[in-house]
Formats: sequence, structure tokens, C-alpha cells
Amino acid sequence: MIVVLKPNISKKDEAAVLKEIKKLGYKPHIMRGVARTVIGAIGDELTHQSLESLPNSFPKAIESVTPIQKRFKLVSREAHPANSTVNVRGNLIGGKKFQVMAGPCSVESEKQLMTTAHAVKKAGATILRGGAFKPRTSPYEFQGLGLKGLKLLDKARRETGLGIITELLSENHADMIAEFTDIIQIGARNAQNFQLLIAAAKTGKPVLLKRGLSMKIEEWLLAGEYVLSNDNPNLMFCERGIRTFETYTRNTLDLSTIPIVKKESHAPIVIDPSQGAGRADLVIAMCKGAVAMGADALLIEVHPNPAEAWSDGVQQVSLELFAKLMHELKPFIAAAGRE
Amino acid sequence: MIVVLKPNISKKDEAAVLKEIKKLGYKPHIMRGVARTVIGAIGDELTHQSLESLPNSFPKAIESVTPIQKRFKLVSREAHPANSTVNVRGNLIGGKKFQVMAGPCSVESEKQLMTTAHAVKKAGATILRGGAFKPRTSPYEFQGLGLKGLKLLDKARRETGLGIITELLSENHADMIAEFTDIIQIGARNAQNFQLLIAAAKTGKPVLLKRGLSMKIEEWLLAGEYVLSNDNPNLMFCERGIRTFETYTRNTLDLSTIPIVKKESHAPIVIDPSQGAGRADLVIAMCKGAVAMGADALLIEVHPNPAEAWSDGVQQVSLELFAKLMHELKPFIAAAGRE
Amino acid sequence: MIVVLKPNISKKDEAAVLKEIKKLGYKPHIMRGVARTVIGAIGDELTHQSLESLPNSFPKAIESVTPIQKRFKLVSREAHPANSTVNVRGNLIGGKKFQVMAGPCSVESEKQLMTTAHAVKKAGATILRGGAFKPRTSPYEFQGLGLKGLKLLDKARRETGLGIITELLSENHADMIAEFTDIIQIGARNAQNFQLLIAAAKTGKPVLLKRGLSMKIEEWLLAGEYVLSNDNPNLMFCERGIRTFETYTRNTLDLSTIPIVKKESHAPIVIDPSQGAGRADLVIAMCKGAVAMGADALLIEVHPNPAEAWSDGVQQVSLELFAKLMHELKPFIAAAGRE
Amino acid sequence: MIVVLKPNISKKDEAAVLKEIKKLGYKPHIMRGVARTVIGAIGDELTHQSLESLPNSFPKAIESVTPIQKRFKLVSREAHPANSTVNVRGNLIGGKKFQVMAGPCSVESEKQLMTTAHAVKKAGATILRGGAFKPRTSPYEFQGLGLKGLKLLDKARRETGLGIITELLSENHADMIAEFTDIIQIGARNAQNFQLLIAAAKTGKPVLLKRGLSMKIEEWLLAGEYVLSNDNPNLMFCERGIRTFETYTRNTLDLSTIPIVKKESHAPIVIDPSQGAGRADLVIAMCKGAVAMGADALLIEVHPNPAEAWSDGVQQVSLELFAKLMHELKPFIAAAGRE
Repeated sequence: MIVVLKPNISKKDEAAVLKEIKKLGYKPHIMRGVARTVIGAIGDELTHQSLESLPNSFPKAIESVTPIQKRFKLVSREAHPANSTVNVRGNLIGGKKFQVMAGPCSVESEKQLMTTAHAVKKAGATILRGGAFKPRTSPYEFQGLGLKGLKLLDKARRETGLGIITELLSENHADMIAEFTDIIQIGARNAQNFQLLIAAAKTGKPVLLKRGLSMKIEEWLLAGEYVLSNDNPNLMFCERGIRTFETYTRNTLDLSTIPIVKKESHAPIVIDPSQGAGRADLVIAMCKGAVAMGADALLIEVHPNPAEAWSDGVQQVSLELFAKLMHELKPFIAAAGRE
Repeated sequence: MIVVLKPNISKKDEAAVLKEIKKLGYKPHIMRGVARTVIGAIGDELTHQSLESLPNSFPKAIESVTPIQKRFKLVSREAHPANSTVNVRGNLIGGKKFQVMAGPCSVESEKQLMTTAHAVKKAGATILRGGAFKPRTSPYEFQGLGLKGLKLLDKARRETGLGIITELLSENHADMIAEFTDIIQIGARNAQNFQLLIAAAKTGKPVLLKRGLSMKIEEWLLAGEYVLSNDNPNLMFCERGIRTFETYTRNTLDLSTIPIVKKESHAPIVIDPSQGAGRADLVIAMCKGAVAMGADALLIEVHPNPAEAWSDGVQQVSLELFAKLMHELKPFIAAAGRE
Repeated sequence: MIVVLKPNISKKDEAAVLKEIKKLGYKPHIMRGVARTVIGAIGDELTHQSLESLPNSFPKAIESVTPIQKRFKLVSREAHPANSTVNVRGNLIGGKKFQVMAGPCSVESEKQLMTTAHAVKKAGATILRGGAFKPRTSPYEFQGLGLKGLKLLDKARRETGLGIITELLSENHADMIAEFTDIIQIGARNAQNFQLLIAAAKTGKPVLLKRGLSMKIEEWLLAGEYVLSNDNPNLMFCERGIRTFETYTRNTLDLSTIPIVKKESHAPIVIDPSQGAGRADLVIAMCKGAVAMGADALLIEVHPNPAEAWSDGVQQVSLELFAKLMHELKPFIAAAGRE
Repeated sequence: MIVVLKPNISKKDEAAVLKEIKKLGYKPHIMRGVARTVIGAIGDELTHQSLESLPNSFPKAIESVTPIQKRFKLVSREAHPANSTVNVRGNLIGGKKFQVMAGPCSVESEKQLMTTAHAVKKAGATILRGGAFKPRTSPYEFQGLGLKGLKLLDKARRETGLGIITELLSENHADMIAEFTDIIQIGARNAQNFQLLIAAAKTGKPVLLKRGLSMKIEEWLLAGEYVLSNDNPNLMFCERGIRTFETYTRNTLDLSTIPIVKKESHAPIVIDPSQGAGRADLVIAMCKGAVAMGADALLIEVHPNPAEAWSDGVQQVSLELFAKLMHELKPFIAAAGRE
């Protein structure tokens, strides 16, 4: 920790600060600069108590306290220099092959799901997405088919061989969801629901962790740390747009997370352009950008008839548009050195 | 819903749009304006499917779709014109008397809690806050004393007569927390964890719902709707700062929520200046502002020794500062017409 | 500056970093910590070149660089421990007496301005606001009456004795505006138009500097530094709301700026609740909060007939509402120890 | 405009609203819906006064007013369905050929500029960037070489044949800048400095308009409208990152602006990844994304020795890295169907 003292503090105040730093287990190291004195407090910041509250107790003596260690460990590139990969029914996410996960926002009916599953498989997707339990802003909106939806996803898996990804909303559903899915999705609204993260991790299934609407990258990595530190190495990060002042799009898709997650962590990074833009007409361009920037996979909402979708129709692409998208992505996948 | 058509669309496209609007259960009403044609789609927006996905299916014909009904019902001022009040061990929140909830961020020890409880009671608080289960950004940070913390809160209640407020983190803890607390707090990170909101509502205990870090006011009111629609009328909203670009403060306390919640809803509004500022030195000024603007109560973090607090020491005020704060608030409480 | 090195860097890399630090004029001071080595680079950060680009040249050796000095000088409380005051025709802003500046968003006509001027004076305002040159988002919107508007403001001043505040939009208008006004307002969109700040400062007139829509507090203080360092001591800061994700209000009025500006600077702080809320129905509550939190003055938009205002009618209060507001503010002004 | 009335308002209130709508020049059209009555106010929204202030005058009768027309005209795709192109010394921006503008943040010396100019030309850039007048957050930072910098840019142009882009900071410099540059850059801090936009437009030189730090897309397009409506058709938009809560990057580069500007406008869109990321190590990935998503050009900061740059060294790439970047972009430019 770096403790910056105020200019012209008394020797007595300085001594009191030094005493408190030692009491909290750090070894102080004094540097007298031109304008002010700085104390380096030497000690492991992850195991010692933080000094960040010191200015509160010494308001006249301390100007600021800054940590210098990174707070994430297992998730960091330092801990695991090579890329890690997640194996989903034989498809590696994070490897040489680019993966596409696609399907409806919500599972609505057998016909809707099967039509979509066959179409996205034909177009090249390897994993089928579909919500059985839906987190909805209003209690009066469609909340998902629940167990019936999970069974339909299972049926689609058996018919098509596609892997399945679906969202977990409740700790109490963790075992049930794990029985039916290949990847557990943690949604943006639950990205710092740590009990849910622990419950998901403990199922042993791969976990795809969406970034919260206003989650800083460090917080996102630390949420991932909850998965890895609960003995589940199969973690993927998924950027789906952050909340900003802009209202043209529903969210602002932050594609810079691709090189940043690759730099800071070994875990794969997946991009969800459907939530990110909240508008089907922008999805193709965003997918191209994500591929070019080095994403490992895409998560795309596809619906046979978006206008009549029971949730988020505005951001779902039609089967035809999805096929076109997959075709147009090919040269960018090649340019990115992927298959 | 208001459906705005693009300029110069064909009669055929317009007919197709009208057909789809009728199919989804609305009665279309056409208005031909100067620059474009607008269709009013008449029907109950809360029970019918939204038309907001229409532009996705008719990209060449439709420019935009705007809902006109408010999405919240039970929580709205229209549904319940008078202020509602929440009774906590005889203290009414939302009534004439201004209430103060105070106590440590986390329950750390019997001594810490009892010292604080007696001090805040003496200074005029009526409700004791204290976290037993703590949501922490990193898995390596102090996670709370758990059940032991709840028992200490119970002991403090018996000794001082103060009501208790503590946070619920897991659906599985709802019954246990309800046994020990007078108010269940839903934290900012769980403000759209709808399963948790339902579990909290079903205990029958009063629920204090913090605003999420990037929650729009409409979304916050709708999250409150999850409580009321699960047969629990004892709802309070609590503003605790939103996430913005500013880094001087930890969050930006949005005091405009006080008149807005009062205008849109009947539920009490509580202000948490500790989380809001994230800095003890700003807490007094923010409390004064909250009182003047018409808040019903304050939720303040107080610790006997902030520099050595196990969590968020930087934003907790000392016992002395809290007593000073309570004293300085008095003329503002009077000016606001409160007791 | 604090230079944090990466773990396990070579002696050679460390030596190269030290050499560069010395070359840029700083004296390096090494601290070897538990997890990494930190270099304190001792030297005046305001006169030396910043080291913040070092990680760019030493990407494998340096993790981060953090400045420790505050970047603002003349505007800081350290430079001038007492509050400074601005004298506007005998009314002190920043002193014991609370001041109110009020008037229409735009000067529209003699009748509109005179009616408003007499009404706000009667209600207790001491300064008249009114835009003669208006910055408008669209080139097709009303751009202000220009010189004719300035002359009307001058006439209102002569008739009522109120001081005048009006906005400066162009360097080329600085002398003309200074001839007619008592305070030059720099609007939010021009808050980092440094040429305009310098031109305003050089007129010698008091300058009211609004906070930019997404301006951090440090940047705002530094923009104020442009005024003070151009030999104009009569600076006031004005918070008028920042841009956030919230759409219920036009902006989010950040009242925490009151205690923060008071802490960091000696200059008066003025609150503009009209722009801040963008809704007349929230203005009264916000004014009360601003007074209670220690603001020195308010800047309020008032119009005889808001529905027919030529700009921003939605946020202007009527003459009746303004009189009510002034009446209701009295007990809060007293509670805040002001007159 | 769509005027939504409150439920259960009296006939008298409704009549008063209708009368005011007519008085302001619109023809009202009433639609009685299930929950509330909606009035379509028919009339040209760009030439009539806005009705958005009506709720202020009729607070008990009107719930909301929503405009339906787009506010921008000349800049819109509707006004000019084909892409427009800007010709800079024979290089078309917005055409088939992808263009790269590169050079130092600030012009510092003849040696620095010439070295960079020759290197970026060799690597494939066609336009040289370099700041002669610099907008700096603090008055104590390097403010640019001024006229001397412009002359160096001119010399570099003569030596290399590269076009020149440099920033305009002051209306008073418009003629001087226009004499030396091929493109006038309007920086993010001046993006709503309308007087500067008009001055730039009137020089007749192509104008590159950066997006303001917190500018909504509609506001940006309207700022562009100031250029086109002042008889200068040579407008380019440049996305350079917006201000969000994230602190890992200096700004959040919003690449979704590429498909959005292409959809709404005919003007070329340029991406500035240097400002956008504020970190040289992220620039390559962002350039690839921008190319893939359909940008027309890139604006990249390049410096022979970033660690010793006089401004923004942290985001400038070295000559070597720039050459590598240009090489790696090639397959993406081809995949995007550009040359």
C-alpha cells in the first residue's frame, strides 16, 4: 500500500500513522519527496487488512492510500500463463476453433426450439442457447417455461448433438439446471450474486459469467475468482454490454474487453452482441468486430419469428439473418487465424 | 403503444404492419402526420405482448415503437395515493417522525456491536444496522460472522430495544434471517435478484430495497413490484448511490430520488449516505441534504474505530462524529416539518 | 510518482527503468515489497514531465505509474485556506448571506424579461439570469437574441438594481458580454473550452464555471485553474448535473460537489437545480437539499409562461412557483446558518 | 409529438390542453386507449415550437410528451442515400480504399515529426496527424508549438506528400489553421462548441468531428448538422471513446457507432483507437475490430519514443509497433472488402 501524507504534518501525527501501519501488520518505509512524504507499507495486501480506511481515522495527516497488488489470483494470467480451454461435448472453447452459441432468448415451445436448433446447427453453431428460467425486470412479464423448458433443451440436444447453455437464476435450481445443461450461464444481473456463483461452481459444470451492467473489469475478474476458488476450472467470461448514457443502443458493447481479458486472464472470452446492442440490425457488424479482435466465441440470440418472441424480440435475429451472418463471418475468422 | 412508420412506405407494407398489430391483440388507430404516419396501438400493455420487437420484423416499414403505459402498478402512487408507512417495533418509517438506522458495516464482535448499539441509541437512532452475511467483491475478503453475527444482533436488540436491519444474501437464509431481524435489507448487487426478492417478500418482514449500482428508477420501482406482488406491503426504497464516471466519490448519491420516489410511489424512501459517498468526511453534509429534501429515514454506517474495521472502514463514521451528526441534523429535521 | 514494477523482472530491466526515471529528472527511491518492487520517483510533478507513459516503453517491466501530487494549485484550499468571496454589485457570493440568481433560460422579449425581473426581485433574488447567446444542440433551434438580449438585460438591471449573469459562447464576444454583464457564465458544453475560459478571465469580470456533463471533479477544478492563473480571482463553480445512465431526469444533480468543492477549494459553489433535474417539479426539493448541504447560491430558471418558452420550458418554474420556493427555503437557510 | 394524458382527467383540463396545442400550431388528433388518452399533435416538429414543456404548465393533466421526428436533416441517410466521400489530396475517405491517418499526439520538434512522417508513410498511412495547438486539462501542461508546429506540418507535407490533419481550438485561429492543414479536427472537448464548428465549416476545409466524451449519437449527428448547414459538405465523424464508469481504459471505445453512423448518415466514420483505449497495448486489437466493422479510416497516434512524449505518451504507439499493426491489418481490410 502507498500512504501519501499531507504536506506539513507534525512529527507526532506522522508517528501515530506509522504506529497504526505497524499495528495492522505492515512494515512502513518512508520516502520524503519534494511536496510531500510517502510511506510504502510493505506486506501482503491479500492477507492483511486493507489500510484504505486510515484516512478516515487520520483525516488531518493522510491524504490518500493506494493498494499496489492486484486483487485477483487464480483467474490471472500470471497464475496460468497459457490460455485455458473449456471442453463442451468435444468442442473446445478457447482453442484454435472459433465457436458459436446460438438460439432463442427464451424457450417458448417445442416447435420454436427445434426449428431454431436445426437451423443454427446447419449454419455452423455448435452450442444451443435458450432460457428456461428468465430474469425479467417486471413481475408481469413471461418468466420462462422452467423445468418444461429444460426438458425441451435436452430433447434438442439429443436430436441435434448440439451442446446446451442455459441460465441459472436460483441457488435452489443449481442441481436441476446442471442435470440438463452443458454450460451454466450466470446473467448480468446476478454477476455479483456470489452465493449463486458458488452454487454454480460447485456443480462442476462449465460456467459462463456475464459482465454486470456496471461492473468494472477488476470486479468481473474477481467474480470469476469465486468460481475458480470453488474448485471449478471451467470458467468463461462473456461481455454483453455495459450501461452508459447512450440511449440509441440498449447497452454499449465494450469490445475492448477482448484484448483486456486476454491480457489479464487465461480464461476464454465470449461476446454476446444481442444483449450488447439490443438491436438485431447491429448484430452482424458487432460479430465481425468481436471475431477480428480475438474473441473465442459468440453467443447470439436467434428466433424463427422475432416479432412474436415472448421476450426481447427486438434483439433476436431471424434464421435467415443468422445464416447470412455465419457466412459473412468466415473471412474474418480466417483473418483472425481461427477455424 | 405508439408505432412510428418510416416516410414513404408502401400501402402493402403498411397493411402488413396493421395486420401484425391486430394479430398481437391491439386495435390500431392511424394518424397521418406531416412527415410520417403514426399508429396508436390500443390495448392493455401490461397484459398484451409488447410490440417493441416489431421493427425487427418490419425493418423497412417501422421506425420506432414506444410504450405509453407505466409498467409498475402496486408500487405506484396511483394505486395508493396516501403515503404508506412501515412499522418497526413501534417506530413508523414514512410517518411524521424522522427515523435513523445506524450501526457497523459488519458485525465483528460482541464488544464492537454493543458499544456501537448503545452509542447510536443514545444519540437518537431507533434501528440498529449490522451485516452478518457480507457480499464481498473478492472471495478473499471477510464474508461476515454469519449466524453468530445474527445472534449478536439479537442480543443487542434485547439490551437496547433497538430494531434490527440486516442484509439477506441467499434465498436459503431467508427464514433464518427473518427469525433475527426486523427489516430485511436487499443489497445493491442483488437488487435485480428476483428470486431473492420473492424469498424476502414471503417472510412477511419489512423489506428495504437498495437501488442497484446502475438501476434506472423505473427498474427499481419494478423490483419493488416483486415485493408487493408477493403479498408483502412493507416495502422501503433505499438510495445508496449510483455508479458514474466520477472517481472522487465511490458512488454518486442521487438525492433527486427523494422527490421522484415520493412522486411516483407511496413507499418510504431511505437514504444511505455512507455507501453513497464512500467517504466518512462527506456523510454529514449528505445527511443534511437528505433530510431537507424529504427523506423518511437515514441508514448510516457507524464504527467505534473505523481505521480497524473489517470492511469498508473508509466510509464508516466514528461514535463521536455520529453524535455530532445527530445534533446538527435537528434544525433541518424541524425545517422539513419532521420530528 | 509511484512506479510499480512487475514481479520477477530482470536486474537489467530494472536498471533501464531507473535510468529513464533519472533522465526525466526524478530521483528514484527503491522499496522492495513482498510481491513486487515499487520505485518512488521523487521530483516536482507539476514542473517535470509525467512518467505515466513509461509502461508504454517498458511493457514487460512496469505494471503501473501513479502520480501523488494534486494537479491544481491556485484553486486549492491549501493555496487559500479561507473562503474567497465574489462581490457582485455589493452582494457577496460565498459569504454569510445566501444568494439567489434567477431568471429565464433565454431572453425572449422586453415584456418577458421585465415581468420576470420584477417578480424574482420581489421574491428575494439579487441577481438576474438570462441567455442572450444560446448554445443549442440543433442549428434549427432558437439561438438567442444576441446583442438585443444583452441590451434588455442592461435595461432590467437599471430598472431593478439586480446584478446580471449571462453566458459567453464565443471568444469574440468576450468584450461585448463583459460590457453588459456582472458575471460571465461558462456553460457546461464549454467547460473545457480553454480558449474561452482564458478570454472570460481576461475581461476581469467574475466567472461562473459550470461543470461539464461528464467532467470529473479534478478536471473541473483544473478548468477553474485556467481562470485564476489568468489573473482573475473572481471564480465560482456551478454544479448543474452530470450525465449518467438515468433517463427519468435530464441529468443527475451531484449535490456531493458542495462539500467536496468546499473541502478542496476556497471558491464559492453555486447549484443550478433547473439544468440538474431538467424538470420543474423537482426544483423545490433540490433547492432545499442544496441549501442544507452548504451551497453559497442557487441559479434558477424562471419564466412567466413555461409552456410557451422558446427554450427549455420543461425545466423553468413559473413566477408563482418561484415565490413559493423562496418562501419555503427560508427555514433551511436559517438551519444552515445563513441569512 | 405524442402527448399522453393522465388517467381520469376532467373534460375541462383536456380542453385546455387541446387549446394550447392548437395555439402552438399543431393539429391535435385524439386517441382514447384502454388506460389513458393520447393526443397526436400533427405538425412539423422542426419548424414549430416543441411541446415538451407542456407538462410543466399542465402538471395534473399531462403525463409525457414525446417527439416523433428525427431532429437531424442534412446529415441523415434519408437526405443523401449514397455514401458521401471526402477527398484529401486525392485520397478518398469513405470510398473503397481504407485510409490511415497517423502521427504524433503533439508536434514537438522537426526531428520528431519528420522521423514519424516518413515512417508512417512507409508503413502505408496517407495522412499525417499532429497537434500544434493542444487542449490540456491543466494550464501547466504543454500547450503545443502553435504556428511553429503548423509550419513543421507543412514541411512534412511537402517532403512526404502526406495530407495533414490538425486540431482547431479557437475561432480566431480558423484561417491560420486552414492555411496549413488539409483536414480540420474538432476535438472531443469542443464537439458542442458550436461557434467553433461554424468557424471550421466556413473555411471550406474538410472537418473531422470527434464525438464528445458524453455525447449521445443524436447530439453528435446534430453537431455535424452545424457543419453541413454552414455550406461545408466535407464532414467526417470520428469515434474516440466515451466516458463510462470503467477505469481500466481511459475511455470506452464505442465501436457500435460504426454501423450506427453508416445507418443514420452518409458521412464517413473514422475510428481513433488511441484516445479510445488510452493504452498503446490495446490499439492493435481495436484497429482490427474497427476495420472489420466497416470503419472508413483510422486515426492513430504514433511517436518515435512514447516514454518521452510531451503529451499522452501512454497511448502512442512506437514506429515499430505501427508498422506491425499496418501489416496485421491487411487480411482484415481484405475481409471487409476494402483495399
